[in-house]
Amino acid sequence: MRMYDIIKKKRDGFELTKEEIEFFVEGYTKGDIPDYQISALLMAIFLNKMTKRETVDLTKAMLDSGDKIDLSNIEGIKVDKHSTGGVGDKTTLVLGPMVAACGLPVAKMSGRGLGHTGGTLDKLESIKGLRIELSKEEFTRNVNNINIAVCGQTGDIAPADKKLYALRDVTATVDNISLIASSIMSKKLAVGSDGIVLDVKVGSGAFMKDFDNAYKLAEEMVDIGNSMGRKTVAVISNMDEPLGYAVGNALEVKEAIETLRNNGPEDLVELCLTLGSHMLVIGNKAKYLDEAREKLVDVLESGKAYEKFIEFVEAQGGDVNYVKNTSLLPQAEYVLEVKSDEDGYVQSMNAEEVGKCALFLGAGRETKESEIDLSAGIVLAKKVDDKVSKGEVLAYVHSNDKGKGEEIVRRLKDIIKIGDKNKDEKKLIFTIVKKNS
Amino acid sequence: MRMYDIIKKKRDGFELTKEEIEFFVEGYTKGDIPDYQISALLMAIFLNKMTKRETVDLTKAMLDSGDKIDLSNIEGIKVDKHSTGGVGDKTTLVLGPMVAACGLPVAKMSGRGLGHTGGTLDKLESIKGLRIELSKEEFTRNVNNINIAVCGQTGDIAPADKKLYALRDVTATVDNISLIASSIMSKKLAVGSDGIVLDVKVGSGAFMKDFDNAYKLAEEMVDIGNSMGRKTVAVISNMDEPLGYAVGNALEVKEAIETLRNNGPEDLVELCLTLGSHMLVIGNKAKYLDEAREKLVDVLESGKAYEKFIEFVEAQGGDVNYVKNTSLLPQAEYVLEVKSDEDGYVQSMNAEEVGKCALFLGAGRETKESEIDLSAGIVLAKKVDDKVSKGEVLAYVHSNDKGKGEEIVRRLKDIIKIGDKNKDEKKLIFTIVKKNS
Repeated sequence: MRMYDIIKKKRDGFELTKEEIEFFVEGYTKGDIPDYQISALLMAIFLNKMTKRETVDLTKAMLDSGDKIDLSNIEGIKVDKHSTGGVGDKTTLVLGPMVAACGLPVAKMSGRGLGHTGGTLDKLESIKGLRIELSKEEFTRNVNNINIAVCGQTGDIAPADKKLYALRDVTATVDNISLIASSIMSKKLAVGSDGIVLDVKVGSGAFMKDFDNAYKLAEEMVDIGNSMGRKTVAVISNMDEPLGYAVGNALEVKEAIETLRNNGPEDLVELCLTLGSHMLVIGNKAKYLDEAREKLVDVLESGKAYEKFIEFVEAQGGDVNYVKNTSLLPQAEYVLEVKSDEDGYVQSMNAEEVGKCALFLGAGRETKESEIDLSAGIVLAKKVDDKVSKGEVLAYVHSNDKGKGEEIVRRLKDIIKIGDKNKDEKKLIFTIVKKNS
Repeated sequence: MRMYDIIKKKRDGFELTKEEIEFFVEGYTKGDIPDYQISALLMAIFLNKMTKRETVDLTKAMLDSGDKIDLSNIEGIKVDKHSTGGVGDKTTLVLGPMVAACGLPVAKMSGRGLGHTGGTLDKLESIKGLRIELSKEEFTRNVNNINIAVCGQTGDIAPADKKLYALRDVTATVDNISLIASSIMSKKLAVGSDGIVLDVKVGSGAFMKDFDNAYKLAEEMVDIGNSMGRKTVAVISNMDEPLGYAVGNALEVKEAIETLRNNGPEDLVELCLTLGSHMLVIGNKAKYLDEAREKLVDVLESGKAYEKFIEFVEAQGGDVNYVKNTSLLPQAEYVLEVKSDEDGYVQSMNAEEVGKCALFLGAGRETKESEIDLSAGIVLAKKVDDKVSKGEVLAYVHSNDKGKGEEIVRRLKDIIKIGDKNKDEKKLIFTIVKKNS
């Protein structure tokens, strides 16, 4: 087999065989095939597309290039959740304890990553003492004992994807549905869960800006998951404005705790109920979505979800006083108000721009080496469709640098658009994508 | 300017600006832009095409990456000829003396190259003593004195093209009309001629296998030449069977000499008259093509073309006895006959296959380091549409290796197809492509 012929075949619009896909993925990972041939192939894939069969085979080949996480020592049906990423997305912090309280084992491997705020692991470090590096034994024991553990991902997961993604990133071949789907799924499938619930975000703060592409991506991922024996469902949800009110690490932990105390923002609660219902049904903890939703509402109302969170924090060495009294969480020196200049309604706020503001304040990493300021961020006071009066507060900027904070106050005034009431009601959940749906 | 944005722009089907094209050509030549970004761009260009304007700008940028050959010390209008390459193509050896004898200065820079046989320079070395390395002064003086000089190309011509071609060759991005046209023209335009006559071959022995693509290539090259101030004309000629009868270095020199003695094969003579007529008209040595053709026929019939060749050989130190008595030219030890097994007509002979036979006998180079056997090759006895009887000779195989010669006898029996008479008459010149034609 020659790499040249594989490039030529895809260039001419033909479908690559499983063997050809394995050949280039293995050859590239080993370093036998040079970057310049792979980037030519990636551009041919980008422009001529891949079939679903090719996408599945690419995912498998990338998955097989690295380590797999064995969860077989954990009892019960394991259902993983993955979000394609958004602004203010603290879902894992809320959803984990909720479904764990319903009896579903939550064996969550999470990441730090680059983004407008830190990842789940960074956020959890707002709680004093909480360890996110657990041994395999401790991780397994905790899930078996209290139904929940969250730790950093270990092992060399899908190194082929890592290498391919780095190349795609510099050759303008990232934004292709098949390549995105196989990249996400090759990493997700490395963790040995039985089911996967995907939260595919769409909107100004998401990777996917329009519904059609988000739908195609969801479909591809659901296909891949199911074709590899994992029950996979995707929820397509709105990311046109930040989720909830808080954007920032400690700020989001505080909001997550409020939500677990059954006092959360409507959109965050609704998203957790939707994602959680599918998790419980896949995990055989409920037969129907309605039944699952009732259970989830119950653990919020009864305080069981909140108790589960406390149990989790305790099990991983965290100081539970930080949960009980959230004023102990890292606090920024300055809290500045963004006030409305006019009467009207919030028409929109570009979520990506809000995210960039948080990043500018120090809430996220620009490079792998960046230090995160856990206390920095933004707390919205108004969301889209809310009525506002002139002089009313739209948002609070939390910063340890007054100058930066003041700049963000100015920027947010531009970002949060005030005007007439929107004609269409905003929607949180667009649709659910299931096998053969 | 960022390379990433240039890739993305072409990926999305937009036209690159002159500045963007210069940026990537210069950056790549200097080594500032890595192979993997250029190969992604090349694939995007391959699949999304380039406009004529982009092709012209790419040609200019590649041309400007290297040295240019100044011909301003040579008097008169200089008209260059370039063939896209075929089997048995000894046109330069015949056409040069013909147009020189008509008063047109022939300042020919030629190559060796890889191919089924050597290039013009290799062929000329069949003549004892003939030097093809001339100083700039000697080259200029010879053209000014006797109207003709042929020498090896010096200087670093279009290094950008060299680097890009090497990358295209391993990334399946060679066969794109714009990339081929700009590659050829960037090298051709480096020689400071006033006009260019292109011989674009089409058929089994040519790079372009079908007329439509050959026509598009011709059009692109004519556009590029004219847009850069060179009067450019392309002749699209048939390369379904070898040109003339001889394929091989010394064998082709012998046939060229026969042709200059007004005793050449019909197709070779006709092609030289066609290409030469356009050269004379562009070079202002004739007003009309008919007039030009008459002059060319005259120099063949009067012996002036042949005399010019002798003059040329003498001026470059060659032994003219080799021209006067061609049996002095390198001769192979064995000359084997390919005989017909049946009565009928020659229906076809795949020119590329015939070329490969010559290469196998040692007439060409497989790698830059290969030694050429100047005496080896094939001399056809029959051409397409000729009537043959069983037992009649179809071709002669000239070889210094009897075993190899016998193998080629067998292969040529397969290659030369005998059967019923072809319905359509064969055509040598398909069309002429000129500015706005």
